[in-house]
Amino acid sequence: MTGPHPATAATRLAVRAVLGEGDPGDLVLVACSGGADSLALAAAVAFEAPKLALRAGAVVVDHGLQADSAQVAAKVGSRLGRLGLDPVDVVSVEVARGPDGVESAARDARYAALSSAADRHGARLVLLGHTLDDQAEQVLLGLTRGAGARSLAGMPRARDRFRRPLLGVTREQTRASCAAEGLTWWDDPMNADPAFTRVRARRALADLERDLGPGVAAALARTAEQLREDADHLDALADRALATLLPPPAGRAESAGQPGDDYPGPAGVGVDALLALPRPVRTRVWRRLVLAAGAPPGQVSTRHTEACDALLTDWHGQGPVSLPGPLQATRSAGRVSIAPPARVE
Amino acid sequence: MTGPHPATAATRLAVRAVLGEGDPGDLVLVACSGGADSLALAAAVAFEAPKLALRAGAVVVDHGLQADSAQVAAKVGSRLGRLGLDPVDVVSVEVARGPDGVESAARDARYAALSSAADRHGARLVLLGHTLDDQAEQVLLGLTRGAGARSLAGMPRARDRFRRPLLGVTREQTRASCAAEGLTWWDDPMNADPAFTRVRARRALADLERDLGPGVAAALARTAEQLREDADHLDALADRALATLLPPPAGRAESAGQPGDDYPGPAGVGVDALLALPRPVRTRVWRRLVLAAGAPPGQVSTRHTEACDALLTDWHGQGPVSLPGPLQATRSAGRVSIAPPARVE
Repeated sequence: MTGPHPATAATRLAVRAVLGEGDPGDLVLVACSGGADSLALAAAVAFEAPKLALRAGAVVVDHGLQADSAQVAAKVGSRLGRLGLDPVDVVSVEVARGPDGVESAARDARYAALSSAADRHGARLVLLGHTLDDQAEQVLLGLTRGAGARSLAGMPRARDRFRRPLLGVTREQTRASCAAEGLTWWDDPMNADPAFTRVRARRALADLERDLGPGVAAALARTAEQLREDADHLDALADRALATLLPPPAGRAESAGQPGDDYPGPAGVGVDALLALPRPVRTRVWRRLVLAAGAPPGQVSTRHTEACDALLTDWHGQGPVSLPGPLQATRSAGRVSIAPPARVE
Repeated sequence: MTGPHPATAATRLAVRAVLGEGDPGDLVLVACSGGADSLALAAAVAFEAPKLALRAGAVVVDHGLQADSAQVAAKVGSRLGRLGLDPVDVVSVEVARGPDGVESAARDARYAALSSAADRHGARLVLLGHTLDDQAEQVLLGLTRGAGARSLAGMPRARDRFRRPLLGVTREQTRASCAAEGLTWWDDPMNADPAFTRVRARRALADLERDLGPGVAAALARTAEQLREDADHLDALADRALATLLPPPAGRAESAGQPGDDYPGPAGVGVDALLALPRPVRTRVWRRLVLAAGAPPGQVSTRHTEACDALLTDWHGQGPVSLPGPLQATRSAGRVSIAPPARVE
């Protein structure tokens, strides 16, 4: 008897590490589009879960973005059933074309559908099929935003119930695994449409591999992992610093470090206390202060936190710093406060 | 009277910020290859230095890698003299083709020649012409190594006497500035030879800009700056942690945190003390421990520090970890020691 194809073995090994989190009887759901990555994942889970006495099911989300999407989703669903997954939910979602584009709206709708399926079935874990190549593309996209370690940190292996076991497995391996298992996958036509950022990132990665040699995708994925650890730690230091700078208002002692709506308030933060923080912690504290004052998260950029920091490091009596909200950061009498312009006398 | 071309104004502004470090009478040297970047830099320094009562000179390094390199260097030297720079040294270096390739050997020879020219003339600062595009290319090259924040941090703005004032100015701006000033620059034929890593990085960046939109170079350069701050801080935390883990040997109290040759020695470091460190600090401490034990710096990779860390986080009685040197990390009786294999009984 020969063992499984090496790509199938790699996929199963990756899945096993994550399934080990479950207890006997737990249900694990696989989010499956029918693409090679999530199909290889589903097959590996169908194979490994019973060995750990776990139940394995799947969710297929029909985004309704193509004419035949319902038929595709139904076909994927019955294939998953034949793999032995149970339950298999095929869920239709409505993708509202929001201000951030259809990709972002589709993602939001997909995660909402997956979460509600997990609730419905009481699933312990929801597994996502993102591969090493997806991770590398994510890092490339982050690079082009130029917003530091966090934007380069890629997708996390684990968040809440969601797990991404295949971040160390290449897209090519998932295809080889499906082929070896006789599984026909579905190539989403959206994966070839350069209107989508993700498709452009895929092309960019292929160009990089050609220009700089093979192994770029793996290097990007490795970088993401290290930068995620760095970013998590620096964020934790910033949270701790923030809790010290801003003692919680009366009656909120329980929520130190969890700033609320009117927090940090117009009383502000001492210049000396801020200057005592190391720069990379302080820039993260600035971001938290601006958000805590009510600025919309998507709109606060490095440019804003740099302008705030100049109130400390390049202080020459300049006026308030304009921030999204709209808000203003104002230095006065050794303190910096962040508040709506109306509050500034 | 009209002002200078915007690109010239941007170059001069960038130079001014750095020249401000000097005191009247100080000599500032520009390292100039004759390319548009360093020629624009030299012209800006020639214009700005006198306003601050600084003396401005230049060094042209002839790497001897092309048949006509001596003539090119001499021509660049006389052009710099006509710009008013004084002294202008044209220095020939011998590029030994070392194990890391001719680019690396040329760089080493160039920096040695610049340092010795700076010593000879008692220069306060040596300015280098690297642009925003060079920085972006450096980040891309770092990405392909996959070694975390430090490899993505690009080139520093300042190190010892060296300064890179143009990291926020694009290559295109330096060309526009030269053109506006009537300065003819020299295009190094090595800049078109894909045998060189730097040339491949340049092509990769152009591909990224095409795939992902303009602004990628600027985003990469911005990312480098933020990651450098992060990396500096995490390195400082690691240095501090190391000093606590390894009290200096007797008679070395002055050099705490500056481990010497036989340091950390076979006594090792306590497992509990290491485990108490946050992961991103601990991985950096591992690197320092391995280097302090005598491993060659260029050979210690993430793979090695991960294997060391598994002695803590995935301890199941495994044998020693093989490290470059050759060295071994061995866990025994609640301590990890790093020493040559011979020392292990």
